[in-house]
Amino acid sequence: MIKVAVWGAGMMGQGLLRFILDRPRDLELVGVIDRHPEKHGMTLGGLLGEHYDHDVAITADHDTVLALGPDVVCILTASNLHEITDQVEAAIRADADVICIAETLSYPWATDAEWAERIDELAREHGVSVLGTGINPGFILDALPIMLSSVCLRVDRIEASRINDLSPFGPTVMSSQGVGTTVEQFKAGIADGSIVGHIGFHESIGLIAYALGWEIDRVEETREPIVSTVERSTPHVHVAPGNVAGCRHIARAYDAAGALKIELVHPQQIHPGLEGVETGDYIHIVGDPEINMSNCPEVPGGKGTYASVGNYIPLIGGAVPGIITVVDMPLPRFLSPTE
Amino acid sequence: MIKVAVWGAGMMGQGLLRFILDRPRDLELVGVIDRHPEKHGMTLGGLLGEHYDHDVAITADHDTVLALGPDVVCILTASNLHEITDQVEAAIRADADVICIAETLSYPWATDAEWAERIDELAREHGVSVLGTGINPGFILDALPIMLSSVCLRVDRIEASRINDLSPFGPTVMSSQGVGTTVEQFKAGIADGSIVGHIGFHESIGLIAYALGWEIDRVEETREPIVSTVERSTPHVHVAPGNVAGCRHIARAYDAAGALKIELVHPQQIHPGLEGVETGDYIHIVGDPEINMSNCPEVPGGKGTYASVGNYIPLIGGAVPGIITVVDMPLPRFLSPTE
Repeated sequence: MIKVAVWGAGMMGQGLLRFILDRPRDLELVGVIDRHPEKHGMTLGGLLGEHYDHDVAITADHDTVLALGPDVVCILTASNLHEITDQVEAAIRADADVICIAETLSYPWATDAEWAERIDELAREHGVSVLGTGINPGFILDALPIMLSSVCLRVDRIEASRINDLSPFGPTVMSSQGVGTTVEQFKAGIADGSIVGHIGFHESIGLIAYALGWEIDRVEETREPIVSTVERSTPHVHVAPGNVAGCRHIARAYDAAGALKIELVHPQQIHPGLEGVETGDYIHIVGDPEINMSNCPEVPGGKGTYASVGNYIPLIGGAVPGIITVVDMPLPRFLSPTE
Repeated sequence: MIKVAVWGAGMMGQGLLRFILDRPRDLELVGVIDRHPEKHGMTLGGLLGEHYDHDVAITADHDTVLALGPDVVCILTASNLHEITDQVEAAIRADADVICIAETLSYPWATDAEWAERIDELAREHGVSVLGTGINPGFILDALPIMLSSVCLRVDRIEASRINDLSPFGPTVMSSQGVGTTVEQFKAGIADGSIVGHIGFHESIGLIAYALGWEIDRVEETREPIVSTVERSTPHVHVAPGNVAGCRHIARAYDAAGALKIELVHPQQIHPGLEGVETGDYIHIVGDPEINMSNCPEVPGGKGTYASVGNYIPLIGGAVPGIITVVDMPLPRFLSPTE
């Protein structure tokens, strides 16, 4: 029986809570932390639906939850290291393992090596492990191509792309991808950093290079507007023909000799099907043998992310202390729900 | 630097030897054992080509090779547990980790639990690990669907198929798959056990059930002739129209309630393309989300198998002692050759 606390009860956290509550023989939910006052005191039945009624209430008081001694704290709150520092540190100081969906934590050395060293040391002092995972980074553009490379005799280059549909997401995602902007607004948004494209390319490249022992000399990125020729709409955004339906973000990593080693392509847009674009995950390993994998449609980002977190819960107890990556973990696998 | 001995210098062993010799900074080849007298005293340059010249000679004298203290002994000799017992035991008694392509060793409890217990205990006594791997079992029909299941919230059933081309293989494989027989001869061969189809379904089912915590109640198998409508030939076999080009072997695993949980399909034949059949590896996870993965063409069986063995060499030193499976190992990954 593993005692689990969940930090962050947004869409991702709610998905993970259902996953945990479906497995009462393996996982014991000890607390739910959320900073939004409108959720405080809410029961899980109120948040997740009657079927998930449970005596744990949602609170902002993380000290009280951490004092209950969770074995694992799952953090589903934000993307950037500086946004999760306090949460990760508090969980470590409570001697809990951490599994977190912050994209940057999947390979934190990519954005802030000093942060990574400091948290790694703290985790080792407390004998706990800190893992960043999710569908991407954490699976489609890194762990899966790494796994596939293990049946190769030679790997010259890894190319992977993930063509997904942003339609289910809310206004935050729309604005960070530039959905609904004019081409001019898109360019301005890229220039001022308000349109960011995908967060996670540097982490996926870091994971692949780490796993395969490759030295990457430089990474080049491009972010281009996906200009729609048709009208596309979601409850949160409207895209007129000629305006931007999403962001085509590409990262290319080269070695010191200038050879392209890793190319990751992630065009994110709403309703790609309206222009005949099929969504999917694609991995091409150029080597011997060549690998040409496709998964259509793509693994949905939300479900895939909280499923990954939930399925790593039984595995993290056996991991070495410190910051670890999906590359250091055993082969992940589905945790069957309690019958 | 990992000291490696290779036991078995057939096609699989030769592929692994090239893999090892391409990585002189990580792997040190200490010996090559083979029982065929015509290879004894041969140099590796003679066996593998000039580029692979090396001072290790091929010998039948395994004691002398094992006395050199290899860290890892790779065994690429046979399929069945009773055929590899002496080799595995000798390697364990020499305090070496073992990586072996015997299909039955990927999950030895499936065919001989007593053998597995005995070897597991011996390996623990010597503090070494014993791993069975290969393309199948070991990857396509087990490790890969298990890995993909980790981004699922619900897994009702795993269906996987591997449609491959046997054309490159030699006469042993042709006769074990019934290639070139009449339909009558095929049926007689299935009845008397001389035509076996795929070896490894019970192991793949065992690995999936072990990883996902599923209880399998019964496994049903069918083996049917793939009757050719066209002429198909290889250097080793000729198939006239109306005769058998291969064996369509299917295994289905059910739980106690009678629900189909795992369906593995492996039609093995020569030149499937002559009748428009595209080769490939296909994984379908029925659950939430559904996964629909394909890899076309299939990962070649030979290369994929010895690549898998070679790429596990740097990982097995960190494994717990005893018989282990690909499910217990870290995420496998390509070992880059020395520049």
